[in-house]
Amino acid sequence: MNIAAKAAIVGWGHTKFGKLDALSLEDLIQAAAREALDDAGVDAAQVDAVWLGQFNSGLVPDGFASSMILGADPALRFKPAIRCENACASGSAAIQSALDAIAAGRVKVALVVGAEKMTGLDTAGVTRALAGASYQKEEAGMSFPQIFAEYAKAYASEYGDPTEALAHISVKNHANALANPLAQMHRPITLDYALNVSDKNPLIADPLKLSDCSLISDGAAAIVLVAADMAKDFRRAVGFRAFEQVSDLLPLSAKKLTAFEGPARAFAKAYEVAGITVDDLSLAEVHDCFTIAELLTVEAIGLAGPGGGRRAVIEGQTLRGGRLPINLSGGLKAKGHPVGATGVSMHVMIARQLMGEAGDMQVDDAKLGLAFNMGGGAVASAVSILEPLR
Amino acid sequence: MNIAAKAAIVGWGHTKFGKLDALSLEDLIQAAAREALDDAGVDAAQVDAVWLGQFNSGLVPDGFASSMILGADPALRFKPAIRCENACASGSAAIQSALDAIAAGRVKVALVVGAEKMTGLDTAGVTRALAGASYQKEEAGMSFPQIFAEYAKAYASEYGDPTEALAHISVKNHANALANPLAQMHRPITLDYALNVSDKNPLIADPLKLSDCSLISDGAAAIVLVAADMAKDFRRAVGFRAFEQVSDLLPLSAKKLTAFEGPARAFAKAYEVAGITVDDLSLAEVHDCFTIAELLTVEAIGLAGPGGGRRAVIEGQTLRGGRLPINLSGGLKAKGHPVGATGVSMHVMIARQLMGEAGDMQVDDAKLGLAFNMGGGAVASAVSILEPLR
Repeated sequence: MNIAAKAAIVGWGHTKFGKLDALSLEDLIQAAAREALDDAGVDAAQVDAVWLGQFNSGLVPDGFASSMILGADPALRFKPAIRCENACASGSAAIQSALDAIAAGRVKVALVVGAEKMTGLDTAGVTRALAGASYQKEEAGMSFPQIFAEYAKAYASEYGDPTEALAHISVKNHANALANPLAQMHRPITLDYALNVSDKNPLIADPLKLSDCSLISDGAAAIVLVAADMAKDFRRAVGFRAFEQVSDLLPLSAKKLTAFEGPARAFAKAYEVAGITVDDLSLAEVHDCFTIAELLTVEAIGLAGPGGGRRAVIEGQTLRGGRLPINLSGGLKAKGHPVGATGVSMHVMIARQLMGEAGDMQVDDAKLGLAFNMGGGAVASAVSILEPLR
Repeated sequence: MNIAAKAAIVGWGHTKFGKLDALSLEDLIQAAAREALDDAGVDAAQVDAVWLGQFNSGLVPDGFASSMILGADPALRFKPAIRCENACASGSAAIQSALDAIAAGRVKVALVVGAEKMTGLDTAGVTRALAGASYQKEEAGMSFPQIFAEYAKAYASEYGDPTEALAHISVKNHANALANPLAQMHRPITLDYALNVSDKNPLIADPLKLSDCSLISDGAAAIVLVAADMAKDFRRAVGFRAFEQVSDLLPLSAKKLTAFEGPARAFAKAYEVAGITVDDLSLAEVHDCFTIAELLTVEAIGLAGPGGGRRAVIEGQTLRGGRLPINLSGGLKAKGHPVGATGVSMHVMIARQLMGEAGDMQVDDAKLGLAFNMGGGAVASAVSILEPLR
């Protein structure tokens, strides 16, 4: 059953991603919230409830942030607010919660914000905070680059060296970000740079180099969701053909590392609900926290069988103009990855494409777009399939 | 509209609350989850989705805990999981999210766990972690006792000294906990002790003394929720006459401190939806994080007008046998307050009363019970009104 079909996205806001020293978490949340309400033409008084997707885990001292959304407009005071946290899939957890409330009929108009303030800490501090999203009983002391390096090593050992494909992914996402003014990094890189360890591209966690890792970012994104029967009252509307979430066990030791099992299940469920195959998709935004994650996603999403993702990537299937353009926004790799914002940002990027409002990122004739937001090492996997309603 | 009526509580689990050195957050979550499934007679494979209410904010290094629930049973792997965080109202936020999913028809059987591991840190560390739930831009460095001391001072200045009423609340909740084997503290206190500052009852934040403050606790509670149309298949079922949540602004400076405005709105909405008044309630579990919070709740809940709560308390209206027995479990004051567990624990305590399974805590002829779970200084206010279905 596609209960997500009962809601539509009718507006959005999105701060620039980057090191935004002048903006606090609260500033980011409220900027995105106001922009989304303005964009939708929704008065704050019409909002029935708000949700925040945010990871935190020590990134900021603000331990209770859902009600910060209410500060965006005096009319939001006394609305229900909930923060959802599923590590890097927190934004999608917030969207899913709002979709449930709309399908339940409790809420007609929902404001969902995803936000993260990360650059207040130094890199070591951020690495430590993010590491909290791993299984502390077995993985304490491991960083997330190290966790995804385990995936890369397992992949190499099962299917052969993925280095070339990973470099292509990095080059593609850096190139795509050039068309996205909101992206954190506007710096094209060469295949040669991405392929080789160098002073400027050091190993972070063997075999992953700097060019394989996503960014540390501040940023927020927001969407206004309304009950589908209200969509006709808005100048544009994007609907959900599917929204599916699958969670897997936290310990790495409990999972196969040569494939993304949880994500594969989430894609399969979403395709079934939407009644589509991967070839019906016009574009996808996927969770390239590390290039190996995008490679494994290329397989889980159905572009290639086990071990075949490298060839699909190197052939250019995921480039603009390819079989399925992936991360035209620049992805987490170059757009940036303010953790709690990412899932909401993906929805904004897809919605803009479907409405023909993606600027230089725009693909022709976008009919169906997919967002895949992941928490931890393939732990929380959320897949949305979006379509234009009007 | 009471969308919460579409769900019923059919089983529960509840660890002892206290300093549980041998149990990790994961152990607590999984113990409560397994007990709730066993109690409901639900096979883990029947569960459609799980929710976790947890505050954390540095209490434990585990930064991504929703999927820990899945470790409770192999059949839970790949179920959707979301963590909800609304400071001390995290447990209720998780319940509300599950109620939405059930009313939406996405989920027929939900497992909701609330949990917190607090005693791994020393008292200063816990105080610092909890302080994260205040507005850091204006209140950084303030502890929660200091925040609620502001309410007590404002109340005293507006209506006169509340000390005697606060002492009665403390004495009552300590006495009530004696009947609750799961309570952290089984130690009756005298009115004389609670009234006076002493070596054993020092000021924590003037005018609040040790006897006015709730406990630092480890613990977890869980409930199994099913779609109301399935309730007949279970040996017992507790329904929701209402579930309402209201969020207020985070800064203390934005709020009146002489009354609980957000909670009063949540009570009023819940009564309206349920079609009842306070005098229809058989009992209530309310958020006595500090005795001043219970006093302000006595007014917000409708037992007394502004400033009249002291008299209602001193007269014994909230005692067992009084007009509305409050916190027969011992409350946060003596049952304990593992932050994320508290909202779920309240629902378990009320459900047991309504089913006649509350042991020595049992009140006669319990027909309607209320749970009031609050995050921050009257920021997130969740009110449930529960009734026996069968």
